[in-house]
Amino acid sequence: MDSKLIKQVTVVGTGVIGNGWIARFLAQGYDVIATDPAKSAESRMRTAIDKAWPALLKKGLAAEASKDRLTFEPNLTKAVLNADLIQENAPERIELKQTLIQTIDQHAKSDAIIASSTSGIMPSTLQEKCKKPERVIVAHPFNPVYLVPLVEIVGGKKTSSDVINRAVYFYESIKMKPLVISNEIEGHVADRLMEAIWREALHLVNDGIATTEEVDAAIIYGPGLRWALMGPFLTLHLAGGEQGMKHMLEQFGPALKLPWTKLVAPELTEELTNQVVAGCQQQTAGRSISQLEQRRDHFLIELLQLLEKYWPGANLSGRV
Amino acid sequence: MDSKLIKQVTVVGTGVIGNGWIARFLAQGYDVIATDPAKSAESRMRTAIDKAWPALLKKGLAAEASKDRLTFEPNLTKAVLNADLIQENAPERIELKQTLIQTIDQHAKSDAIIASSTSGIMPSTLQEKCKKPERVIVAHPFNPVYLVPLVEIVGGKKTSSDVINRAVYFYESIKMKPLVISNEIEGHVADRLMEAIWREALHLVNDGIATTEEVDAAIIYGPGLRWALMGPFLTLHLAGGEQGMKHMLEQFGPALKLPWTKLVAPELTEELTNQVVAGCQQQTAGRSISQLEQRRDHFLIELLQLLEKYWPGANLSGRV
Repeated sequence: MDSKLIKQVTVVGTGVIGNGWIARFLAQGYDVIATDPAKSAESRMRTAIDKAWPALLKKGLAAEASKDRLTFEPNLTKAVLNADLIQENAPERIELKQTLIQTIDQHAKSDAIIASSTSGIMPSTLQEKCKKPERVIVAHPFNPVYLVPLVEIVGGKKTSSDVINRAVYFYESIKMKPLVISNEIEGHVADRLMEAIWREALHLVNDGIATTEEVDAAIIYGPGLRWALMGPFLTLHLAGGEQGMKHMLEQFGPALKLPWTKLVAPELTEELTNQVVAGCQQQTAGRSISQLEQRRDHFLIELLQLLEKYWPGANLSGRV
Repeated sequence: MDSKLIKQVTVVGTGVIGNGWIARFLAQGYDVIATDPAKSAESRMRTAIDKAWPALLKKGLAAEASKDRLTFEPNLTKAVLNADLIQENAPERIELKQTLIQTIDQHAKSDAIIASSTSGIMPSTLQEKCKKPERVIVAHPFNPVYLVPLVEIVGGKKTSSDVINRAVYFYESIKMKPLVISNEIEGHVADRLMEAIWREALHLVNDGIATTEEVDAAIIYGPGLRWALMGPFLTLHLAGGEQGMKHMLEQFGPALKLPWTKLVAPELTEELTNQVVAGCQQQTAGRSISQLEQRRDHFLIELLQLLEKYWPGANLSGRV
């Protein structure tokens, strides 16, 4: 259980999440090999790293960190050969990921950890076709991966506890907050919560109650300010006066029986799709995604500093 | 439509929300009369204002702001007599609120605005028994009311648009972000989103997937950092790469069909209640609610400053 075992990291799949991982690994001083079957993957990847780098410079790089320690290797087999940890970021299709992880399992070193960034698929499913399934885990990050600290660590039925421990140690060493989830479910924990909000938000737009802009405003000027600080439970605990959560459950428990929230997701009709896409375009008022990303990144760095000021070294027990 | 019309504000009901309103009104330089039928209401109210005051000092008071401009008047009729705006914060029971608002309507000045802080009840229901229903609105705030800017403004079937306009002008003048919701529904907008998360969070605890602490950690170290900044729509827009929301809907739309989130609220059994209450107590590690509130308040002030730095004068179009 020595994190020094992990020296060389390979990132499989270089979309938004894969590139986010690469930026984080590089900033923490790792050697990174990246692989992706797409034609223009390498240039898109290098552009993405260049874009993330100013934020990482502002946040602070590890002593040996360098963009030069990144190699693109189009051949998957070669790319994983010497890796101590392989971070997989393929599209969310079960069979594609199963086959890909099977291939990685065949070619990686026997003690390499295979970590999938999947947001929805259970690790037991991913490890099914592997010879050494005990080293397959889910390590699910959040966008932008190079700044947001949460990573959900989930083992499958055949994952060894030693691998989970090594993974936790490694992700902590790259300044993340690993949340180990003992019981695997689709969507893990954070995405189930986000999905619940997301469904409700789509209904509000679909029913003509609010625009995408109004839904977003209802979060950022209200509950969102608290969610950087407290999860749903602690938020209610502090809303309950001196009696805290006990009072809240007594007072608002019955409201849970009311049919407030919509029970199923709305049909993603062409109309709803257009409405949502157009709403987002209008909200961004002509700013490019890239401009929005830069501002978000610099804000997040200062927000993380602020949280550290009030909750120095906060652990997974939260900011209390 | 002159906000100067509103000079004297009366707050009916002095629980957590009522006292939060009083603190905000006082800090913005208003004369406030408070009323509550409970015996020790006045002393609890004064304690609450004293506790909020240091945060408000740090945030900055209006020139004429003073705690001395607060009067407690146990008699409801007298309390509302000269008010330009009455902010009602009684418990969430329909009949109680209807009767209370009916009484206020009988005794208030004819051009006074009657605003209910209700989180769930529709304004059309609240104004049913009033002689002058056109001046009844919902103005739903978020805890802590003296710092969080969002206020949802909802008119009922009989509310006049002039009253809505006057209310928006007034709440803006006390440094809030009024979000006018055109179609009334139970829970308005923000609470429907929070309720969706809250149900899912209870299920995760109930099913033994995560503790309250782990659920909270899954928010504060991940999605919560973004929600201070972006609502659910803009978050996904930025997660979709250069294609933004369009790509996200294509990629993740099908996942909405999966039975990820739980469809109905779990039974609030004694066991689940105890589990949730004990979880929150453990998370707070012996810190009093009061200590937690103070830290939250000072953090929120700096967070709001940070948001202002990156999005000076952001309006309801959000932080883009």
